[in-house]
Order: sequence, then structure tokens, then C-alpha cells
Amino acid sequence: MIKKRLFTPGPTDVPPDVLNEMAKPMFHHRTPQFREVFRAATDGLKTIFHTEQEVITICGSGTAGMEAAIACATPRDKKVLVANGGKFGERWAKIARVYDLDVDEVELEWGTAITADDVKAKVDTGEYGAVIVVQSETSTATWTDVEAIAKVTRDTDVLLMVDAITGVGALPMDMDAWGVDVVASGSQKALMTPPGLAMVSLSDKAWASVDTIDAPCFYLDLKSYRTSLAKDDTPTTGPVNLITGLRVAVDMINAIGVETIWKRTALYAKALRTAAEAIGLTLMSKSPSDSVTALGCPEGVDVDGQFRKILKTTYGASIAGGQNEWKGKVVRVNHMGYTDPLDLVGLVAAMEFALSDCGAEVAIGKGVAAVAKVLKDWQ
Amino acid sequence: MIKKRLFTPGPTDVPPDVLNEMAKPMFHHRTPQFREVFRAATDGLKTIFHTEQEVITICGSGTAGMEAAIACATPRDKKVLVANGGKFGERWAKIARVYDLDVDEVELEWGTAITADDVKAKVDTGEYGAVIVVQSETSTATWTDVEAIAKVTRDTDVLLMVDAITGVGALPMDMDAWGVDVVASGSQKALMTPPGLAMVSLSDKAWASVDTIDAPCFYLDLKSYRTSLAKDDTPTTGPVNLITGLRVAVDMINAIGVETIWKRTALYAKALRTAAEAIGLTLMSKSPSDSVTALGCPEGVDVDGQFRKILKTTYGASIAGGQNEWKGKVVRVNHMGYTDPLDLVGLVAAMEFALSDCGAEVAIGKGVAAVAKVLKDWQ
Repeated sequence: MIKKRLFTPGPTDVPPDVLNEMAKPMFHHRTPQFREVFRAATDGLKTIFHTEQEVITICGSGTAGMEAAIACATPRDKKVLVANGGKFGERWAKIARVYDLDVDEVELEWGTAITADDVKAKVDTGEYGAVIVVQSETSTATWTDVEAIAKVTRDTDVLLMVDAITGVGALPMDMDAWGVDVVASGSQKALMTPPGLAMVSLSDKAWASVDTIDAPCFYLDLKSYRTSLAKDDTPTTGPVNLITGLRVAVDMINAIGVETIWKRTALYAKALRTAAEAIGLTLMSKSPSDSVTALGCPEGVDVDGQFRKILKTTYGASIAGGQNEWKGKVVRVNHMGYTDPLDLVGLVAAMEFALSDCGAEVAIGKGVAAVAKVLKDWQ
Repeated sequence: MIKKRLFTPGPTDVPPDVLNEMAKPMFHHRTPQFREVFRAATDGLKTIFHTEQEVITICGSGTAGMEAAIACATPRDKKVLVANGGKFGERWAKIARVYDLDVDEVELEWGTAITADDVKAKVDTGEYGAVIVVQSETSTATWTDVEAIAKVTRDTDVLLMVDAITGVGALPMDMDAWGVDVVASGSQKALMTPPGLAMVSLSDKAWASVDTIDAPCFYLDLKSYRTSLAKDDTPTTGPVNLITGLRVAVDMINAIGVETIWKRTALYAKALRTAAEAIGLTLMSKSPSDSVTALGCPEGVDVDGQFRKILKTTYGASIAGGQNEWKGKVVRVNHMGYTDPLDLVGLVAAMEFALSDCGAEVAIGKGVAAVAKVLKDWQ
């Protein structure tokens, strides 16, 4: 009778309405029926991305979207700056090297983000063709100020390419107004759809760069997606039921308004941080993301072997552990997408119980009271 | 009250049990729960592919799997022979050119297949590193004799790479025994799962080639899939519910036995061809595939504007039209995957009705009687 609750930062929980839509009988992708759904999903994504540009959807994991952008859009004759503050920043540097780009990888201390000033110092040298940053680095739950960095790049020839995979639909993103050149996202985070779709949107400046490059790939060639999307179509067989599911999820988001969801997600983050402090967990990031939170555990608690295991098996709540240097010390909790206040109150209760089961000193009820107080302002 | 019936050659109809499995609550991919499902699905695919090798599953359309094989496995220092007998053969030549391979594209008349003798003449020159053929060319419903071609390549250094996307699970494929080096497939054909997964299996000879090549891509790098699969894992976020669905579909196939399914599919093909002849439709391919059938329509029938439209709107049956030079002249009908005898009897009835509605002379009941007679031998 213990209910399973998914608090991992991707895949995140998926609304039953999305799953049920996907369970409807299969239909063909070269039909008006598919084109209508695909166009509706795409238009919904444009609203969420805050862009007038098309949002290209690729069947693949989030990595496929970022690779498409790196392979097809990154200027070849200049350096590319990659801010590596965790597992994903590290991955973009790796991908850029696969395409023989001249990569300047800025290694950041875990839990810190690159600043607009750091970027400006590099960009001002005139040596850079692109800057790649991660809006919300999932491995460290750390937020990068994309708006500030876009102010540095927007009136230059430099492309700003943003991994917003745990950003879009959770954290403020005003692609056109800020002047971001590439925004990449994925279905399985704040977009509340199962994993399997990557989204990429490009500015006119980024498309101009794409048009100068012979794509070094076929499946991830952004030009073929652009041509197909102009006819509400996909270049190869479209992932029909992931798209029907996405359309429902996107409609749910836009019915509320993504700006309202940004505020709610920020409130959830605040509530969880406040509660965490009340039960002896510490905020790991110096620039915390509002979509996912990384929390350090008290000395003596066996994080992966006991705390997370008890949470999952006894209380049904799945949260993620730490990676690399944070492995065994940290837990990561999702509060983007299909999350509501009662989820968080329940999760904090479970964390209190499980910490106590692990032998940590916890005043049961203190965290729950703290999270409830903050969430009272929920709208 | 008209029921929708999907007879397109991919996506094909998906069993309700597969869709319902996929509609279960989301769970995380880095868990024993996912690894168990992924391993079971993979082992089931190995049985279906008739191989002891691993079967790699990539989130993407079938094209992604073939591109992974071309990009990662094709020897760079020799020519690659591509048999182009339709839209897919043409695509593999395009992809090979993206990777700067020296492509010898053999253009075949539509509805014909490359023969083992054709391949032998080329391979004997010693100039070729790989041969790419399409086991079942969906655009022309044409079958290539992979077993015979494998006899030519298996004791040479030449890799035989097979697009078996509408082959695996429908047509005989004995990968290890025949000595095929690359077999690629996709979820949305005979494997009865929604579109979004590509599968690739490689022989030792093909893996040896992979190991000599620096992958020119990241997402489609077969080495990373091999490393992850050794731990029953995926290199990036796994498409959780496509995999849970695949596992159910694969279990359904193996419960019957893929060899039995090959025989049934061949019987369905025979039944449909016999019925088609009885109602004035002509078999287009000179080497017909058993997984999909292309049929020419009588003079004067408006194939796409009337015949297919009436079939779909009045009788609920979706079939595909012709492509390129066959556009407007041909229909293509799926009989692989989740198809049963009653489906085919019903479809033939609908084709009789719709042809008659289009003004063609049809003896109503003749096709139905013909299809029923052949299907009586069904097992």
C-alpha cells in the first residue's frame, strides 16, 4: 500500500493524462492527424520557450539536442567557451571536441556558476565563436544567470548556446527578449513527458551560422528538421505517442501559464531549502537552481546505502544521490514539472522519518512545519 | 462506430498490452528496476535477431541506428557499396556521403533487389570495405536475399550491413549463422512498439572495425552504448517507457517463437497477394517482401484522392500510398507485427468495397474468398 513517488531530477513524474494520451491506439505520422498534434505541441513549446522561433523536436535524449546544436551551429573558425560546472558542462566540452572544435573548457568548482563577467573577459578577446553554458546543472543543482550572460553576447557575433534541459518550463527563460541563440531542452524534466524527446530552438543568428556549415551528421542535421517542421512534419518517422503526450503536457503548462509555474517552482525550492535546514541538511550550491536542489547530509548518515534506500523502500519516495565528488554525501531532489505542495510536505516528512531511522538527530515535525509555512503562500 | 485499423508499414499497430505497460507510472532509469527490464528486452531481441551478440537500443528513429553503424563501423580506407532500390537505400548512400565515405551507389530499378552475384562481382575487386543492403525496402515492398549475400562477404574482410528495419521479427534473419555483420531494426515495425527506438547488432568483425575508428559523433557512438549495455544501462537518459513497452512486445513475440511468426507473416503475404490478384490489383515487386506488399491499382482509379481516402474515412482502414515514381499508382499494405488473419480478411473486404466505390469493376466477395482460403492454413 506504499505509494511510489518520483522525486528524481529526470525522468520526473508524468501526469496520468499524458500517459493515457500516449496509450491511445497508434496512428501514422504522415497524416493530418499527426501534423495537427505536432504543430500544436510545437506552438505550445514556443510559448514556453518565450520565442517566436520554431522549436525543433528530435527523438532522442537531451544530449541529442545539444549535440545537434554543437554539430550544426557552432562556428568552426573560432574558439568555443564551455562552462564546466558539473557532469553536463563536462559532456558539452566532450561533444565539442568530437567535432574538432577548439574548446576552452572553464572548470568551475562544483556548486558554482560562470558569471557574466567571466564570459565578458573571454568574449572581449574576439577569439570566441560560441559560449556554451548550462542554465541548471543537474549534477550540482546550480543555476547560471543566462540573462546576464546574454547581455554580453547578444550584440556580438558570438553565439550563446544554453543547455536548459532542467531549465525550460521551470526557471525563467525569455529566449528572444534576452537574446539567447540556442536553447535546448528535453521532455523528461519540467515538460512532464517521458524521456525520448530533445528540443532545440535557434535565433536568427544561430540559423545564419547553421547555413554556413555542411552538417557533419544526418539524423541530427538541424536543417532537415527545419525543412520538415515548415510542413508540420518530421524528417524521419516521428515518435508519434511521445508527441501526443507532449502536446497534453504542453497544454497543461500553458493553461496555467509558464510564468506562474516559474513562480511556483521557485516557491517549492524555497520551501524545500527552508525545511532542509530545519532538519539538518545543508544546501550544497552557492548558486542554487530552483528546479532541483542538492542537499548535503549530516555526518555519519550512510546516504546511498541507508538514507535513500529507506526513503524508497519504506516510504516510497525516490530521490537521486550525488555524482562524482559529491557521491555518497549528497541527495538531489526534483521540484520541477508535475510536483505539487502536498508532494513536498510528504517528502519532507519522509526525509525526517528516514534521517531518524538512520540515527540522525531530527526533531520530527520541524521540517514539515517549515515547508508548510512557506507553501502557505502557494498560488 | 467505424473502428480505426492501421495497415501502414510503420508505425504499425501496437498491442494494447504494450501501450498499457507504457502508461504505468514513470520510474528512474538508473535503478535495478530499469536495468532488469532493459536486460530482459535486450535478451529478447537477441533471440529475435538470432544472435549471441548484444543488441544495442538507441532512442531515435530507425535512421539513427543505421547512421550509428555507418558512422562508427564502416572502414574508411575502402569503398562502400550501397544497394539503392528505393527511398531507404537512397538514404544510406546519403548518410555514407555525410561521413565522407567513398560510396558506390548501385541504383536498382524500383521493385528489384541486388543479387549475391552483383555483390560478388564488386567484392571480388578487393576495393570494398562494406556492403549496405536493405532486407525489406519499405518504399517498394521488395526483399533482398541477405543470406545469399552473406555467403559472399562472410569469409572476406568486407562488412555486410543490413537495414532490417521492416525485416527483423517478420522475415527470416539468422544473423550469426548467416554471418551478417550489422543488423539494424526499429521499434515501430514488426517489433510492435511505438516509434522511437532503433536497434543495432554487430558481429565481432564489425566491432573490430568500430575499435579502429574514432567515433565522429557522440550520441550515436556505438562504443558508449556497448560500455553501458555491459551494465544493463544506457549512456544517456534511457527512454524508460518505450523500453518497458518493448519488453512486453518482445516477450509476446518470443512466447510464440519468431520462426513461427516468420511463417505466419509469409502466409499473410501470400494471402494478400492472392486476394489482390482476384480483385484486379497487381503485385509491384519482382522480389516481393513478406512484411509489406505494394500493389498497383487499376487504370482510372484515383489512388490517393479516392481509393485510400474511402478506405480510411468510410471503412477505417489506413494503408500507405506509393512514393516517388510510384506515387499515385500504388498502395502499400503492412502485414507484419500485430496483424492477424481476421485483420486481413476485413482489409480485403474494405478494398473490394472501396475499389467498387471508385468505379472499378470488382466481383464483391472474390477477394475475401481468396484471402480466406489461403489463411485457412494459418497456425
